[in-house]
Amino acid sequence: MNARQLFQQIKRKKSFLCVGLDTDLEKIPPHLLEKDDPVFEFNRYVVEATAEFAVAFKPNLAFYESLGPDGWRSLRKTVKFIRRNYPGIFLIADAKRGDIGNTSEKYARTFFDYKAAGLDFDAVTLSPYMGQDSVVPFLAFPGKWLVVLALTSNPGANDFQNARLETGEYVFEKVIKTCASWTTTDRLMFVVGATRANSLVKIRQWVPDHFLLVPGVGAQGGSLAEVAEYGMNRECGLLVNSSRAIIYADHSPDFAAFVRVKAIEIQQEMEKLLTKKGIL
Amino acid sequence: MNARQLFQQIKRKKSFLCVGLDTDLEKIPPHLLEKDDPVFEFNRYVVEATAEFAVAFKPNLAFYESLGPDGWRSLRKTVKFIRRNYPGIFLIADAKRGDIGNTSEKYARTFFDYKAAGLDFDAVTLSPYMGQDSVVPFLAFPGKWLVVLALTSNPGANDFQNARLETGEYVFEKVIKTCASWTTTDRLMFVVGATRANSLVKIRQWVPDHFLLVPGVGAQGGSLAEVAEYGMNRECGLLVNSSRAIIYADHSPDFAAFVRVKAIEIQQEMEKLLTKKGIL
Repeated sequence: MNARQLFQQIKRKKSFLCVGLDTDLEKIPPHLLEKDDPVFEFNRYVVEATAEFAVAFKPNLAFYESLGPDGWRSLRKTVKFIRRNYPGIFLIADAKRGDIGNTSEKYARTFFDYKAAGLDFDAVTLSPYMGQDSVVPFLAFPGKWLVVLALTSNPGANDFQNARLETGEYVFEKVIKTCASWTTTDRLMFVVGATRANSLVKIRQWVPDHFLLVPGVGAQGGSLAEVAEYGMNRECGLLVNSSRAIIYADHSPDFAAFVRVKAIEIQQEMEKLLTKKGIL
Repeated sequence: MNARQLFQQIKRKKSFLCVGLDTDLEKIPPHLLEKDDPVFEFNRYVVEATAEFAVAFKPNLAFYESLGPDGWRSLRKTVKFIRRNYPGIFLIADAKRGDIGNTSEKYARTFFDYKAAGLDFDAVTLSPYMGQDSVVPFLAFPGKWLVVLALTSNPGANDFQNARLETGEYVFEKVIKTCASWTTTDRLMFVVGATRANSLVKIRQWVPDHFLLVPGVGAQGGSLAEVAEYGMNRECGLLVNSSRAIIYADHSPDFAAFVRVKAIEIQQEMEKLLTKKGIL
């Protein structure tokens, strides 16, 4: 899927919502724990309830890895389920990987090459700390996207990302400008936390056309309206992620109905923002 | 295992060698491909051949993940095999993870909590890009170590790690000084590439007592003698990793004998360097 196709999905669904599948056995509705594969069951309900209102899903790998081989099996089933039933969905592996050359190539295969680990994500999140040769090996897979951490939503972002270089640039600024020189807007997004709305103005000057993946709306306190005001471009250019606020909206056996309502609420706010911008 | 115990192992084995288990189905001796679990079989031979001469083993997660759930099973068997047969070995998960709060805690469980994913590593490698709240959740597991990427051996290290801040510090310098303030020398190491021997002098001024995990000797061109000259402290303070140069020393059915010879060669050079420093 290229940027244009992603934008078509956004217009079709009137939404730039990414649903984060941070599926935690300690937080899912307890009746699901009796199932054979509670993680997959939960994901299936969430996907069925929200796919109409979302353009992307983003499983965070930590939640699957922490269950060992079973967790990887649940992840694989989830990805297959989405691919089979919801064509046009953009699938992001939130893995925050980053390693050098030959090792990066293995990570790329893990997430992009179905024949390797049974997964065929559209995109993977990457940490830029190790530089170019930790990022570009992921480009060997045609049509796949890199989503590079730039300015994250957590307080720790101030430790290094927000440090200022002798050139006057911030570290995250250098990350954005440097990574943007390695490939096109059809292969690269940046992660910018919703709690950093004031930085979005500057970021849009540096990368007016790139998609930004924006976590931190809702549970972490970021404002969707501000993110849209400062970050939206003429082709939307935003995927806003919500995890906990949607998927843990309720814990009863009827939780999926509440999940759906929550997704609709966010989609409707997004529709207004897209209309305001003249995109719809 | 604390720093003192690790130093005891180094003195006992006259070695500060870490063997990197970067096990690649395309590179292991072909006769092993007929086995039920070729990755584990290969690791078993390598561990048996080298455990006498090494204080640490470091599987790189990319090689296991890229095989899906089977890869995680091979990793688990490898860790169990080492724990059962070689007490005193320091086990590092080279995962280069980094995510925020609740997600970091899941990653920590993955590698440290045997009940979660069947793994009980002593240490995990972390990317510092997301800052304090992406690193400290790993400290919730008593006695476990964080190994933070500081100055890596690859050319891409120059993109961001080696950038200079307005304070005059390098980014990797700020990473080292900041992370060192979060915990003790019993819980924290830094990754410094062997190709950066000239930076070791400065790094030893900032963190004289921390252990450094040093990859890049051998295949990547770093010199063991230089690393020891500039990086060794009175309690050694070094784990030098070698992966490809040892584990792929040969591809015949007798490969383990060659692997052993290669490990002995490195151990003997290390013994000389420890003696020269007055540690043995």
